[in-house]
Amino acid sequence: MNKKLITNCDLLSFTNGKAEVFTGQDILIEGDRIQAIGDTGSLKVEPDVENIPADGLLAVPGFINTHAHTPMVLFRNLAEDVTPTAWFNDYIWPMESNLTEEDVYWGMQLGMAEMIENGITSVADHYFYVDTIARAVEDSGMRANLVWAVFGHEGEEKVDQTVEFIHRWQGKADGRITTWLGPHAPYTTSPEFLAMCARKAAENNVGIHIHVSETQPQVDLSLKEYGMTPVKQLKETGVLDVPTILGHCVYPQDDDFEILAAADTGVAIAPRTYMKHATAVTPIDRYWELGIPFGLATDGAASNNTMDIMEQMRLMALYSKYKSGDPTQMPISQVLDIAFRGSAKVFRQADKIGDLKPGLLADIALLRQDGLHNLPKSDPLAALVYSMRATDVDTVLCNGKVLMQGRKLLTLDKERIRKEVQSRLHRLSQRVPSARIAYYPT
Amino acid sequence: MNKKLITNCDLLSFTNGKAEVFTGQDILIEGDRIQAIGDTGSLKVEPDVENIPADGLLAVPGFINTHAHTPMVLFRNLAEDVTPTAWFNDYIWPMESNLTEEDVYWGMQLGMAEMIENGITSVADHYFYVDTIARAVEDSGMRANLVWAVFGHEGEEKVDQTVEFIHRWQGKADGRITTWLGPHAPYTTSPEFLAMCARKAAENNVGIHIHVSETQPQVDLSLKEYGMTPVKQLKETGVLDVPTILGHCVYPQDDDFEILAAADTGVAIAPRTYMKHATAVTPIDRYWELGIPFGLATDGAASNNTMDIMEQMRLMALYSKYKSGDPTQMPISQVLDIAFRGSAKVFRQADKIGDLKPGLLADIALLRQDGLHNLPKSDPLAALVYSMRATDVDTVLCNGKVLMQGRKLLTLDKERIRKEVQSRLHRLSQRVPSARIAYYPT
Repeated sequence: MNKKLITNCDLLSFTNGKAEVFTGQDILIEGDRIQAIGDTGSLKVEPDVENIPADGLLAVPGFINTHAHTPMVLFRNLAEDVTPTAWFNDYIWPMESNLTEEDVYWGMQLGMAEMIENGITSVADHYFYVDTIARAVEDSGMRANLVWAVFGHEGEEKVDQTVEFIHRWQGKADGRITTWLGPHAPYTTSPEFLAMCARKAAENNVGIHIHVSETQPQVDLSLKEYGMTPVKQLKETGVLDVPTILGHCVYPQDDDFEILAAADTGVAIAPRTYMKHATAVTPIDRYWELGIPFGLATDGAASNNTMDIMEQMRLMALYSKYKSGDPTQMPISQVLDIAFRGSAKVFRQADKIGDLKPGLLADIALLRQDGLHNLPKSDPLAALVYSMRATDVDTVLCNGKVLMQGRKLLTLDKERIRKEVQSRLHRLSQRVPSARIAYYPT
Repeated sequence: MNKKLITNCDLLSFTNGKAEVFTGQDILIEGDRIQAIGDTGSLKVEPDVENIPADGLLAVPGFINTHAHTPMVLFRNLAEDVTPTAWFNDYIWPMESNLTEEDVYWGMQLGMAEMIENGITSVADHYFYVDTIARAVEDSGMRANLVWAVFGHEGEEKVDQTVEFIHRWQGKADGRITTWLGPHAPYTTSPEFLAMCARKAAENNVGIHIHVSETQPQVDLSLKEYGMTPVKQLKETGVLDVPTILGHCVYPQDDDFEILAAADTGVAIAPRTYMKHATAVTPIDRYWELGIPFGLATDGAASNNTMDIMEQMRLMALYSKYKSGDPTQMPISQVLDIAFRGSAKVFRQADKIGDLKPGLLADIALLRQDGLHNLPKSDPLAALVYSMRATDVDTVLCNGKVLMQGRKLLTLDKERIRKEVQSRLHRLSQRVPSARIAYYPT
């Protein structure tokens, strides 16, 4: 079996939920797994093992993006300084009506190339043309949980097609691809539709990745139309009886916390999107107290502009301190626990990723620590949260395979992606309101 | 005279306060000035002019850092998750008691190297051992307004020494260095001391760079001790009769706004520091309404962790939208106006820097636009605020001289800086409370 030895790195690992950095470590990888970790030179290896020199680099678990619409990088920087309603109805949903399957393929390639450059090895993605997306994931070497976004007006037939997609792709690409169902949101579906999705998810033994309570008007609309919050509706329709990833859940109401704490769920948070769209920011202090798992997400680049989990990590820390009025809140150890362990829980693979230990999958980002913005080298954990940046990522492995080394992408063709994406911009950026793919209710 | 031609860049310039990007431009530089700007190939130049190819790069005015303690990069990542009081009394002021003049020289070199990498060409710096800092600035090629920080307990003699410093360095380094007075803050000086500084500033025809109203307790203390706000005290002591840069001014009270609007002042804001220390964030919406100039700052890296003005620009935008509850607030055009024009006003050189036009000083950052995180290339202004990052800075000129090209620093020795700074860490990070340089009152 293919073996690799990462030599002489500093290594971040969690002990009782607390990140520690061990200097001068070697990591032996066999196939898709971390086989052993030890002081540099201490591991017994055959002479023919592939060596990945990592002197002075910091090895961290590959970053996990718990909620994204990766192909939306195609719409990057095209919907600025607008309200969420205008963002949906006047920009994104009209522009998305232009999308072809091939556009989505190249958007997915671009977004994954960007994520790999940023040290991200896993993504929970929620979009359209997901067979195409799965093919792109297979080629890229990344790990992904994929769902096909479905609106209520597309009907049961569409959901059945996404069930077929699930069967085509579940566990494929050497186990890197997992598939769930993806009804879009309570406000774009009916309770009956959600119940139907929950039933099919249970029948097919998969979970549901869905948007919920992103804005206060969404909650108000639900209360008015259905007499219950969107979270309560997820419970009533059976959605919360299967494992779920909840995109955002920024506005849970009082009883919602109890519902979430009792469910097999995880919340994906994207602080940059919330600040930019001037919503509140997900009440993660309450989620933390109640043990409701949450992790970091970039959302789509049409709102968040980049696919940078390290920036979301830093924003979460800064925002949490600011909001609490107490700079000792959200200390570095908690930030890292959320970014790696919390995100792995939301991704439902906390037993496989989000830490660096023998037996876990070899999803690893190696970061340079010698950037001027990071000197002098002192506390590596403080550096990871507050002074390092995505461009410090030097080398990325996923499932034991090297996807980037010395910042050179090995599985994706950067030049081809550039050309393909740029050539599509003019057509994709046309806005034809009458052709929008859905309507955002207000 | 030394001539340079930057060819075929995209160019950001302001027309009636609004940033526009012109594609396919050449910039002719003669000595320290921009001589002419025109469509690529249209400028008449002698054959021996030095060519700086900039195909596809975006030329922007060099970023301006309006309030920094640059050598504090030496204390980066060493005072995390603490209150402002502990930050001063238990970390920074004890650690600063370890500083030697040579430490400050290397800290200044590191901080300037980092700033040049981040596209920053001007800094208003507030620190100690400023003759040494001035020498470092002279060597680096950057532009700087320098003040020697003085606490009240150091007395008039110390202020007179800083006046001598002013005369030694005013206008030196081809005009790149300007010097002012730097009493530390109202809470570390007395009204008499401030009045004495104001008198000496007026006599020497210079301004004052000072911290004011950084926290609510500082305002409360001033009201209790002196019966007036710190801003009012600056007015009463005559400080506001000379030009001023006010570091932070996060907590102006009602009458303070009127005082500030009537003064020849500018406020330096560092949103990242405020969020991290969980203070409020400077009420820039009011400053904007009242026409009080404000600009971006990194403060010291002991609180802000990096010297990255592009990140402060993005944080200001995100924070302002969030705070107002309206995502249409702080639109891209306003963000850029503040980042470039506002900062140049605070730096008191709005007639010379902060824009790219014939006759202005040749302080220019050339940014790559082809990073994956920035594709497809569509709206360059949205990209500049929301998707580009400091590592996209490719080439930097200040005062007509190239300080970095293709990300290679030309005036500073990165390897030497690394070694010098790292070798000092252990000694500098010792905390000896009894030796702290000042005491933060609570």
